[in-house]
Amino acid sequence: MSAAGAGSAAGAGNAAGAADAAGAGNAADATGLAELRTALGERLLEDPAALAAYSVDSSRAQPEGLPIAVVRAASTDDVSKALAWADARGIPVSVRGAGTGLSGGAVAYPGGLVISLEAMTRIIRIDVDNRLADVEAGVVTAELDAAARAHGLFFAPDPASAAWSTIGGNIATNAGGLRCVAHGVTADVVASLEVVLADGRIMRTGARTRKNTTGYDLTSLFTGSEGTLGVITAATVRLTPVPPGQPRTFRASFDDIEAAGRAVTAIVAGPARPEVLELIDARSVEIIEAFHPSGLPAPGAAMLVGQTVGLDALATAEAIAAVCRAHGAVETEISDSDSLLEARRLANPALTAQGLRVSCDVGVPVAALAAVFRGIGEIAERHGRRVAVVAHAGDGNLHPTVEAGETPEEYAAAELVIDDITRLALSLGGTISGEHGIGSVKRHELPWQLDAMALDAQRAIKAALDPRGILTPGRAI
Amino acid sequence: MSAAGAGSAAGAGNAAGAADAAGAGNAADATGLAELRTALGERLLEDPAALAAYSVDSSRAQPEGLPIAVVRAASTDDVSKALAWADARGIPVSVRGAGTGLSGGAVAYPGGLVISLEAMTRIIRIDVDNRLADVEAGVVTAELDAAARAHGLFFAPDPASAAWSTIGGNIATNAGGLRCVAHGVTADVVASLEVVLADGRIMRTGARTRKNTTGYDLTSLFTGSEGTLGVITAATVRLTPVPPGQPRTFRASFDDIEAAGRAVTAIVAGPARPEVLELIDARSVEIIEAFHPSGLPAPGAAMLVGQTVGLDALATAEAIAAVCRAHGAVETEISDSDSLLEARRLANPALTAQGLRVSCDVGVPVAALAAVFRGIGEIAERHGRRVAVVAHAGDGNLHPTVEAGETPEEYAAAELVIDDITRLALSLGGTISGEHGIGSVKRHELPWQLDAMALDAQRAIKAALDPRGILTPGRAI
Repeated sequence: MSAAGAGSAAGAGNAAGAADAAGAGNAADATGLAELRTALGERLLEDPAALAAYSVDSSRAQPEGLPIAVVRAASTDDVSKALAWADARGIPVSVRGAGTGLSGGAVAYPGGLVISLEAMTRIIRIDVDNRLADVEAGVVTAELDAAARAHGLFFAPDPASAAWSTIGGNIATNAGGLRCVAHGVTADVVASLEVVLADGRIMRTGARTRKNTTGYDLTSLFTGSEGTLGVITAATVRLTPVPPGQPRTFRASFDDIEAAGRAVTAIVAGPARPEVLELIDARSVEIIEAFHPSGLPAPGAAMLVGQTVGLDALATAEAIAAVCRAHGAVETEISDSDSLLEARRLANPALTAQGLRVSCDVGVPVAALAAVFRGIGEIAERHGRRVAVVAHAGDGNLHPTVEAGETPEEYAAAELVIDDITRLALSLGGTISGEHGIGSVKRHELPWQLDAMALDAQRAIKAALDPRGILTPGRAI
Repeated sequence: MSAAGAGSAAGAGNAAGAADAAGAGNAADATGLAELRTALGERLLEDPAALAAYSVDSSRAQPEGLPIAVVRAASTDDVSKALAWADARGIPVSVRGAGTGLSGGAVAYPGGLVISLEAMTRIIRIDVDNRLADVEAGVVTAELDAAARAHGLFFAPDPASAAWSTIGGNIATNAGGLRCVAHGVTADVVASLEVVLADGRIMRTGARTRKNTTGYDLTSLFTGSEGTLGVITAATVRLTPVPPGQPRTFRASFDDIEAAGRAVTAIVAGPARPEVLELIDARSVEIIEAFHPSGLPAPGAAMLVGQTVGLDALATAEAIAAVCRAHGAVETEISDSDSLLEARRLANPALTAQGLRVSCDVGVPVAALAAVFRGIGEIAERHGRRVAVVAHAGDGNLHPTVEAGETPEEYAAAELVIDDITRLALSLGGTISGEHGIGSVKRHELPWQLDAMALDAQRAIKAALDPRGILTPGRAI
């Protein structure tokens, strides 16, 4: 037990120093943690290295101190016990799946408790006839997708992190991805949730039926609530039939990014429906090609890439290519391999490697795409700072990324660019977050989008479901 | 002013007698109502005939006394003033559009205030490029649909009441309809809401973007909340492109209703997607044919009818007909006219005319359709009472209707049949309400479906947003 003992000492020390920062009342005393240790055994981690590893997510937000312990839950009952324990003591709780979040929602609280769902990895059932899957929260998204494909079905939401991120995390953040333009976001496929409330009580939301008007839509309320209303421990999600036929990929190059934006608007308004419709600006294309040379054409301004599916996938791709040419594409290409999408998948690591590190996740109505691209160019010029744009263009969801050196001053300067881009998106009828959530990173932007009454209503709901304010306090809303 | 004076006296009399029944505290005094009269002028109705007319909806629920007044709101500001007035006095409020609800959600409270949105009928904007419509709550559903069709778009949700019901009411109840199997329910097309909270404050939810992860999904929370959390005064809804090509309708007759259920399950699991997929049992077919003779075939057990759309509508209809034959259909027919769907549209008036008056709205997972049809047959036999079934079969959403004479005893006996059918649906993983909502009619069934924690959570949210409990108290949750 020496490791546990050492961890306990470190945890208690941090808790004492951190209670003020967390602002959540009493830190745990040694006796209290011992109680949790008895209940959870080796599923309670107290080793400082583990505490540090479970303190960060994939965002630029940093913890202000170590948590007191990590609960690596093996069951809903573990989560229930941990929350009842934390709630009784007013200890702040952060919740995590694989830690791939980009908004700081899973960063640990100093002196707080971390609940990790990563060990709850059971795919309980693939209900083929009803096209439903029952899963525990820690199931990796790509693994559920693979399990469904064995039955001719698939899991439609495909965040870039799908190979690592968990269903629970996807649901808690209402994750998006490349295929949303065809299949909607994570919220659109969640039928029912098992949730542990702040005080440890376990409840079920939703239904297994396609239609359900019984009571409030708590399923949608918990989806995207970023760990602030309850801990999602299991879910029933809808699966989609794999479209028949050979998918096609397409690519179109533009010398004018606003023309590319207008092409996307026209595609979305037309009858030929892509499954994927992404935009990569010229700067991103250049960086991706340097990162992994594959003979990408060098567009003057931007490239659209995408995929079509179904028996008419080729005709659909041809129709989309024709729309692109009618809106000024200088070159279009269609392939029956996946290769034309590869560049898009490399965008994130390539941009990071080039020092484009500070990104955002704004959305605009698709008719505003040309205007938002023009505006981002003007903002980049005004700040004298490189900005690269990749976008889930078919949804109007953009990820502009700003260059920044690895100093606090550089990050702060890049944040100002992001702030300007965010205000631009809002001025065009947009949103500060299309798919990453608010977490801690975007919380200062909330009042830019939500009116005071909407903020009040959200905080009233938070207070109603988590009266002691232990669940991911101070984030998301 | 003599009518208003008389109405006021009647209202005050009812209020005095009715405050206990409503359980909502102080009734309005004459001075208080005078204040509202000054603020709203002729938009405040007090004539007893109007009070009676605005007291009922289309359900079997009956008011227990007259309301004190009706606010026929012309603007969001009217709603705000009325709610602030009612909240300050603890007066219960019922909310209505066209009064087509089937669950008693819009029935007036004795001594309460009625807020009618029927005069807020502006279609503010059809935003073609973003496929959005901005509408006031009182816009009739079919009128929005017609306005959208002028731009090659349509409004997908199509409750049977679409020619009279309002968008606001559709949203407040999360209405369904025939096309849900293809396009989803009303909740799936609501992008943003304007809501007046119980205390009269006005707020906006959601966004105009396809993806939005900013704050809690209040849009989904208010959708389907049946007037208990706020009053929806305007909405931004998504429109759908009209599919190209000539729609086709199809019909398939079965001698075995369970086989028809299995056919639906197979169709839903297959690649050929209908836009409409309805079931009419043999008893309903017979009654519809008697009501309006059109040469309907007399199926041994049930008929499936539906519609396909798109350039491949005919091939899709043929594929669906083939699935039906493979599952025992004795006759199938495809038409390029709408005629095969007509029978379905006549079902409600025909059944009512034949004394089949007490219906419900249960849902089951589609794989349970055969089992639920078998079980309903057994329940009807056990009670010795005729039950006819029509169903939005593709969604697993059934409307069994039970015969009942026009006496309280007969209604009570029919309700027992409905209770048994509801318990059957729940035992198959179903829901007590697929599209009509809970209102007052189904409230006793809520604990059959929702666990105690889910009920508590819902009531905590209700209390947080409507602390004085004035909005449609005692219903929906």
